[in-house]
Amino acid sequence: MEKIFDYNHLWHFTRDVFVGIGTDVKDAELAATGLLSADLRGIDSHGIARLTGYIRLWEAKRANARPNLQLVHETPSTGVVDGDGGFGLVVAPYAMDLAITKAAQVGSGWIAVRNSNHFGIAAFHAMKALEKDMIGIVMTNASALVAPTFSIERLLGTNPICVAIPAGNEPPFVADLATTTAANGKLEILQRKNLSAPEGWIQDKEGKISTNPHELKTGGALLPLGGDREHGSHKGYALGAIVDIFSGVLSGANYGPWVPPFPAFIPVPENMPGKGIGHFFGAMRIDAFRKADEFKKDMDQWLIRFRNAKPAQGHDRVLVPGDPERVMESERKIKGIPLMHAVVKDLEYLSDRFKISFAR
Amino acid sequence: MEKIFDYNHLWHFTRDVFVGIGTDVKDAELAATGLLSADLRGIDSHGIARLTGYIRLWEAKRANARPNLQLVHETPSTGVVDGDGGFGLVVAPYAMDLAITKAAQVGSGWIAVRNSNHFGIAAFHAMKALEKDMIGIVMTNASALVAPTFSIERLLGTNPICVAIPAGNEPPFVADLATTTAANGKLEILQRKNLSAPEGWIQDKEGKISTNPHELKTGGALLPLGGDREHGSHKGYALGAIVDIFSGVLSGANYGPWVPPFPAFIPVPENMPGKGIGHFFGAMRIDAFRKADEFKKDMDQWLIRFRNAKPAQGHDRVLVPGDPERVMESERKIKGIPLMHAVVKDLEYLSDRFKISFAR
Repeated sequence: MEKIFDYNHLWHFTRDVFVGIGTDVKDAELAATGLLSADLRGIDSHGIARLTGYIRLWEAKRANARPNLQLVHETPSTGVVDGDGGFGLVVAPYAMDLAITKAAQVGSGWIAVRNSNHFGIAAFHAMKALEKDMIGIVMTNASALVAPTFSIERLLGTNPICVAIPAGNEPPFVADLATTTAANGKLEILQRKNLSAPEGWIQDKEGKISTNPHELKTGGALLPLGGDREHGSHKGYALGAIVDIFSGVLSGANYGPWVPPFPAFIPVPENMPGKGIGHFFGAMRIDAFRKADEFKKDMDQWLIRFRNAKPAQGHDRVLVPGDPERVMESERKIKGIPLMHAVVKDLEYLSDRFKISFAR
Repeated sequence: MEKIFDYNHLWHFTRDVFVGIGTDVKDAELAATGLLSADLRGIDSHGIARLTGYIRLWEAKRANARPNLQLVHETPSTGVVDGDGGFGLVVAPYAMDLAITKAAQVGSGWIAVRNSNHFGIAAFHAMKALEKDMIGIVMTNASALVAPTFSIERLLGTNPICVAIPAGNEPPFVADLATTTAANGKLEILQRKNLSAPEGWIQDKEGKISTNPHELKTGGALLPLGGDREHGSHKGYALGAIVDIFSGVLSGANYGPWVPPFPAFIPVPENMPGKGIGHFFGAMRIDAFRKADEFKKDMDQWLIRFRNAKPAQGHDRVLVPGDPERVMESERKIKGIPLMHAVVKDLEYLSDRFKISFAR
C-alpha cells in the first residue's frame, strides 16, 4: 500500500501548497524543507503526512500563513519571539537563527517562542547549529496526551528534546526524543494494523495498564518515558514538564492541558493562559568552551568508542543517536520517499484544491 | 538498625573532618552543607554515607583538599572551570556562582567543569539559582555502570540532570534524575536486603534481563531509563550521553568509560583522555525572557494544576518533581537524620582517625 515519490517532486509540491494559501515564497521553501526533512529521516508521522493538517489549521483560522515574526524581548544571550500564529515550520528557523546569532556574539543564545504552531521535527532545527561548530538544543510543547505519574489526567504533550552535537571526522551526535515511552506516531501505526501495544506505553481512563492502541479515544493516556513508577516514569514526567515550562511558561505560550491541539477538528481548550504553542531553542558555540579542534578530537573518540562498543547477542552493532536517521536520509534522497495510500489521497485532495499538479 | 542524629551535629562533624584533611574552613563548611543536603532531602546514598569515600579518595591522592579553582576560558555567557582535582562539593558551588554571575550580566550563564570529583546531589547546586529568580540546570558525569542500548559494555555513568525552576507563592519545581531506570543507590538497598530487582533495571554480562541486584559485580550493567528498546531505553541512553558530552567532552574532563570511579579501591581507567570528572552548570534569569512576576503567576498556575491533577486509584495525589524531597527536608531538619549502622561505624572510624568527637 505504499508508493515511492521523488524528494524534489514532493518538495516543490509542498512549497506550492504553502504558496497557495498565501505564504511568502521564501517562507514556503523553508517550510517545505523543514517538513520533508522528517520524511527523509524516516520520521514519517511528522512529514508530508501532516501537510493537510497544517492547511486545515489555516482553514480553521488557527494558523497564520503570513506571520509578522517579532523578537519582543531580549538580553545579549536570550530572547523571546512572538510567532504571530505562524506555522512552526516558519517560526522555528527564525528563532533558531537568532539563537545562533547570539551564540556567535556572546558564546550562547537561548530563544523561547510563543504564539507558534507545530514545527515538524526538532532535529531539523537543532542541526542548523552543526555547520557553525555549535551545539543545537531544541524543545517544543504539544497538546496534552500524556498523564503524569499517578494521574489519570492528560496534562503534557509528547514534548520532545533534541540535542545536536558536532564532531570532527565522525558523523555528528543527534538525539531527538519524545519524553514518552513511545511517540504517538508509533501508536497510530499499531492502530492502523490493529496490533496490541506493549505494556508500558499507555494506560486506560482509570490509569490501569492497557495494550489497546485505541485507548486514547476513550480517555486513556500515553505514559511518560519509564512507563510506571517502578521503571522511572516520574523521570519521563519530569523531563516532559521541563520541556513544557521552558517552551510554554518561559515564553508566554500555553502550557500543560491548555496547549492547543494540532488537529483542526478538535476545539481549542477553554481559558488558555498564553498564546499558541511554545518552543525553546538554544545554541552554544564549541569554542566558547574549548578550542573547536580539541573538542572535535575528543568528540570523535567518544563517537568511535560508542559506535564500536561490544553488541549484545542478536545485535550487529551499537548505535549512536542520529545514526539510523542519517542512513535513512542518504537512502531516501536517492531512492525516494515511500508514502502510504492514505497520505497520497490527502495530497491528491490538496492537488485538486490548489490546482497544483501531483504525480499520482 | 538505624539511629537518629541531629542535623547540626552531623554538619559540624562533617566540616571538622574536611578541615582535618586540610580543607579551608570556608570550603569545609560549603562541603558539609552540600553533602548533608542529600541526607536532609532523603537521598541517603549521596549524603554523609559517602564521607569516608571522599576521605579515602584524598588518602589515595585522587582528590585535592586545597584546590586552586580557576576559570580557564570564558565568553560573556560561558566558561570552563578547572577544579584542580578538588572535591566536587567545593568545585561545584564555585562554578554555579559563576553561572549565576554571568546570567545576571547577560541573561544566561553556562559553565563546564573539568578536573573535579563527585559533587553530592545536583539539586543542591541547581537550587542556588532559585533565590535569584533564575532557573538552575546542573549535570555531571560519573564512572561507567550503564550499558548503551544493544550493548554489553558499561560506557556511561548514571549521569543525572537537575533543573530547578522558581515560582511565586507555590513551592518550586526541582527535578533531579539519574538517566537510568533506577539509581545505583536503590540497587545497593536491594543488595543489603537480599531482594530481587524488578525487570528493566539491570542486565547480566551477556546483555540478558536479570533481577539479581549483585549483577554489576560480575560484569552486568545498569540500564538506561526506559529499560529496553521497546520501552525507550535508546532515549535514556541518549540523555545519559548528552550529560556525558556536556560535562566531559565540552570541559576537557574524562568521558564515557574513562571517567574515574568514586571508590578509591577501584583503579582509575588506563589512557584517560581528560582530567578528572566533569560537570555542567547553567543559570537563566527569568526576566531575561519575561517579567518575573508574569512568569511566576503562570508558573504558580502550572504547579497548582499539576498538584491538583486527578490521581489514579490507589494514589492520594499527583506530585510535582521536588515535592517529596521538600517534605522530607522540613521533617528531617526538626526530627533529625536516620543513619544505618554501617554508616555510623564509618563515621566512628573517621572520629577516631581525626580525633573529632562523634555522638554515638
